[in-house]
Amino acid sequence: MTPSKTGISEKARITRDPFPESEKIYTTGSRPDLRVPSREIRLSETHHRDGSKTPNEPVIVYDTSGPYTDPAVAIDVTKGLPCIRESWIEERGDVRVVPLNERARPNAVSLPGLDRTVRVANEGANVTQLHYARRGIITPEMEFIAIRENMARELLWQSGQSPRILPSGLPEFVTPEFVRDEIAAGRAILPASINHPETEPMIIGRNFLVKINANIGNSAVVSSIEEEVEKLVWAIRWGADTVMDLSTGKQIHETREWILRNSPVPIGTVPIYQALEKVGGIAEELTWELYRDTLIEQAEQGVDYFTIHAGVLLRYVPLTARRLTGIVSRGGSILAKWCLAHHRENFLYEHFEEICDILKRYDVAFSLGDGLRPGSIYDANDEAQFAELRTLGELTEVAWKHDVQVMIEGPGHVPLHLIEENMREEERLCHNAPFYTLGPLVLDVSPGYDHLASAIGAANIGAMGCSMLCYVTPKEHLGLPDRDDVKQGVIAYRIAAHSANLAKGHRRAILRDHALSKARFEFRWQDQFNLSLDPDTARAYHDATLPAEGAKTAHFCSMCGPKFCSMKITEDVREYAKQADIEEAIQQKSKEFVEQGGQIYR
Amino acid sequence: MTPSKTGISEKARITRDPFPESEKIYTTGSRPDLRVPSREIRLSETHHRDGSKTPNEPVIVYDTSGPYTDPAVAIDVTKGLPCIRESWIEERGDVRVVPLNERARPNAVSLPGLDRTVRVANEGANVTQLHYARRGIITPEMEFIAIRENMARELLWQSGQSPRILPSGLPEFVTPEFVRDEIAAGRAILPASINHPETEPMIIGRNFLVKINANIGNSAVVSSIEEEVEKLVWAIRWGADTVMDLSTGKQIHETREWILRNSPVPIGTVPIYQALEKVGGIAEELTWELYRDTLIEQAEQGVDYFTIHAGVLLRYVPLTARRLTGIVSRGGSILAKWCLAHHRENFLYEHFEEICDILKRYDVAFSLGDGLRPGSIYDANDEAQFAELRTLGELTEVAWKHDVQVMIEGPGHVPLHLIEENMREEERLCHNAPFYTLGPLVLDVSPGYDHLASAIGAANIGAMGCSMLCYVTPKEHLGLPDRDDVKQGVIAYRIAAHSANLAKGHRRAILRDHALSKARFEFRWQDQFNLSLDPDTARAYHDATLPAEGAKTAHFCSMCGPKFCSMKITEDVREYAKQADIEEAIQQKSKEFVEQGGQIYR
Repeated sequence: MTPSKTGISEKARITRDPFPESEKIYTTGSRPDLRVPSREIRLSETHHRDGSKTPNEPVIVYDTSGPYTDPAVAIDVTKGLPCIRESWIEERGDVRVVPLNERARPNAVSLPGLDRTVRVANEGANVTQLHYARRGIITPEMEFIAIRENMARELLWQSGQSPRILPSGLPEFVTPEFVRDEIAAGRAILPASINHPETEPMIIGRNFLVKINANIGNSAVVSSIEEEVEKLVWAIRWGADTVMDLSTGKQIHETREWILRNSPVPIGTVPIYQALEKVGGIAEELTWELYRDTLIEQAEQGVDYFTIHAGVLLRYVPLTARRLTGIVSRGGSILAKWCLAHHRENFLYEHFEEICDILKRYDVAFSLGDGLRPGSIYDANDEAQFAELRTLGELTEVAWKHDVQVMIEGPGHVPLHLIEENMREEERLCHNAPFYTLGPLVLDVSPGYDHLASAIGAANIGAMGCSMLCYVTPKEHLGLPDRDDVKQGVIAYRIAAHSANLAKGHRRAILRDHALSKARFEFRWQDQFNLSLDPDTARAYHDATLPAEGAKTAHFCSMCGPKFCSMKITEDVREYAKQADIEEAIQQKSKEFVEQGGQIYR
Repeated sequence: MTPSKTGISEKARITRDPFPESEKIYTTGSRPDLRVPSREIRLSETHHRDGSKTPNEPVIVYDTSGPYTDPAVAIDVTKGLPCIRESWIEERGDVRVVPLNERARPNAVSLPGLDRTVRVANEGANVTQLHYARRGIITPEMEFIAIRENMARELLWQSGQSPRILPSGLPEFVTPEFVRDEIAAGRAILPASINHPETEPMIIGRNFLVKINANIGNSAVVSSIEEEVEKLVWAIRWGADTVMDLSTGKQIHETREWILRNSPVPIGTVPIYQALEKVGGIAEELTWELYRDTLIEQAEQGVDYFTIHAGVLLRYVPLTARRLTGIVSRGGSILAKWCLAHHRENFLYEHFEEICDILKRYDVAFSLGDGLRPGSIYDANDEAQFAELRTLGELTEVAWKHDVQVMIEGPGHVPLHLIEENMREEERLCHNAPFYTLGPLVLDVSPGYDHLASAIGAANIGAMGCSMLCYVTPKEHLGLPDRDDVKQGVIAYRIAAHSANLAKGHRRAILRDHALSKARFEFRWQDQFNLSLDPDTARAYHDATLPAEGAKTAHFCSMCGPKFCSMKITEDVREYAKQADIEEAIQQKSKEFVEQGGQIYR
């Protein structure tokens, strides 16, 4: 993934406001230190015509925002978040502490409060969640995910219970065993480095909720830890499930440390960016040794997944020469240049097993980069793209041999009718490893609106089984996203992911839609705002037309006014329908429908 | 269609700025008064490394903006646009002038300059484009459309030539015969009232470019003709193919007159809104006679299509009583209330043949309203919706018996996985009459972003064959759209329609994407802006990061900087690829691919 980094430069302040009428709740699992956060939205009562009232159940939603939206948690960004996974990691008894003088970058600690114990697997040990899963172990991380994906206040399963599987592949409810089995099969990854104990575990896989990623990067001038951390906090507030840190420049190590220590979501990086910094930006001077040291440096910091463009093979590079837009992936173009300059095979490909050996010692997951992804509709689904995808499939099998977790990156620019081929080929060639796509953008002519245009592709590929959608901001192709652009991108992708979750039939995701529509129909305006993905904007747009407080309880709205209100008229229809023979008519009608061929209805 | 009307209140000024580096061009057909407008975007030269330059062909795009973007045309909104179709209508010899005293509303002329000759079919005559098409006649309107849909400077066909048909149903190029045959089959409509001679003909049908509609409405206080006309001009500037006037209130007739006389695009209305005004907003007091007179009044003014909710049958109303969101269509709820109040069948259904008799005398097309469309994901694809659709299919056959043109309105709120059933059922039950959908929205939880969320559904149903997409603005469900909301809605739907056109394989639509991507790859920033759907925003976003004029010619951009630029590196790759044995490698590689199973590639 090489989309643009973020140039947020607003005055630093960590956003900690809770969402309106919302409470952070925790569901406790099988041990007291396994507390799974979610957000509960309180709803007002339904007022009936006869003056009676009915309460409405609160709605629980998946919450990516971490402790920042919990007023009960004191946060000091110079000390970082609590290490909620530390004891889980220690208890497994397969890691040792790396002494300061053995670390890849012993003197790099920028703030003493952030210095964490750095761990690595014991000699010969493999500490990946995939390794545990394949040995039948259910880790606390896996149980955490089962609770989280169910979006409920209570545990939904009993020990040994097997849920019914929906046609989309989703289970009716998620059990820890299901999480383990999906990871063991390679169909899902649980990105949780042993050096990032601050993470609230999450999962990326086709039979779970669709996830989204937001990219951030350091500013041209790094001003403060607050400023850098706020970018992360802002992105996860609106719903980013993971964040990629695409920072560049001299402060790259420190910035990443600040972000990791304060991040409750998995952090991904593209290590070749930092490696390239180390050789002054000259691609030809990259070496395996320098790259390897960079991987270890970042693994010791706690990066949860690495984008690695190991599928850009020397023989594929000429396939791009006749493209309309050549190689548009930054990582892909760096490696292509290196390959051609040395007339040698990609060193990431040649050293792939050594990379596996590193990753399994920290449980860093592969995000196998699509360095040859199409950069235009013209180049979509071409030979270069699918040749690389086939190689990524081979590498997936190599990684799995080492029990290292893998997801596969995908395009890019793909017209609507070619999206399905991407998903099916990825599944076929990469053996159902999770797919992680950038959009895709379904047309090229929308600069300024590429968040929207790519959300169309993202929603579609998500519904087809893509596991994670990398966001695109309105500034894509044009400039650096600011704070509002990041929010626009995240919301656009939450819309894409949620629409995919509905299409996949996620039982609890759909409850939020039903609750919002019920609130809308009953003119419970505040509930409608509070249930929406962006309550602030919904409320502001409403108030732009009808600012008075009374309008938020009025039984009509600004669009039609009291006389024309279709919802009001529908209430009348219901009153009529209650009368006399209407019930009978419904019965009769129902009978007729069956006679006339009821099979056309759901 | 009953989405919100527009509350634009900005200072009135008719926007007449041409698009940057663009020229309005006209292609002349078989007669000198048949001049088809399009927009030609001039491109700069490609600069090669060796200092040589190559010109880039200008790109021609479909242009909905009318004479407003042609600086050569003098426009006075108090006099209206030139009547380009008047002589075509007269020449057919099947209409007569309606004297002032015979008009439905003889005293309603608000501005003398706008008073037009009102026409009606001669006794017993049928003046619809469908009627002509079925008699084998190619009207000037049909020829106009053939030229327009081809988006070319030159005519692409020779007389009698039959184009190859793409798998999607689109022809390689459009001939007048193809236009006629699609209309004759009922698969397309050409909305062009004989009383709206100002229109530039356009077509709505599955085997043509996907069209979009924008809704406008009068402000609470009507201030001036300029203000009302500007709403129209603003919507068509950004790409609305038709506009629905959803005005209400006392000035409804005058506002519509102002819009019609100044509109180069077809205008649709929902006549029941005006009928309801006439009875003080009390649905029960509506009568057939009053509605009929309203139809004639609007037909004499030149409305091109009417939304008529004739499928809301008495027996379907109780089917909605158990819905989550009942009846959300304004027209649908008015008629449901009327039906129940009188315990009688919908008068639009009972008098449908009389409506046909009126419409064929002016060539007003039916837009058969989906009064029972779902208003939430919960209610999607339910019995009420499909029962009504079946009735719309029956009514389509009745309209066709009268040679009256028909399109079918569709939802609304539909999750991604249920969209296809909507399209297929519409085709099956309504015999391939064009489908015209509102969105659909693919989730309910996105108030404030419903333009984006519904563009996802719109793009999908467009790619499946939906002919026209009714826009949704960011203020949907919340308030009245302002000027910027209208633009956001139109651009979102142009993105949806264009992505559908690419998916359908429209040969000339895709040229714009290729040209923009080529410009992007060659760092021709100005060309990239000018080729985009919204050049103003693209330029402003670029300049927000790199405002200097030089940055628009720089061979790098703000996202990666000069060292990291993947496009720059790709240029190097191409240089390498030109050398020595690379050509041979391509040949060899190509051979290998075929051996390894070339069938996986397009």
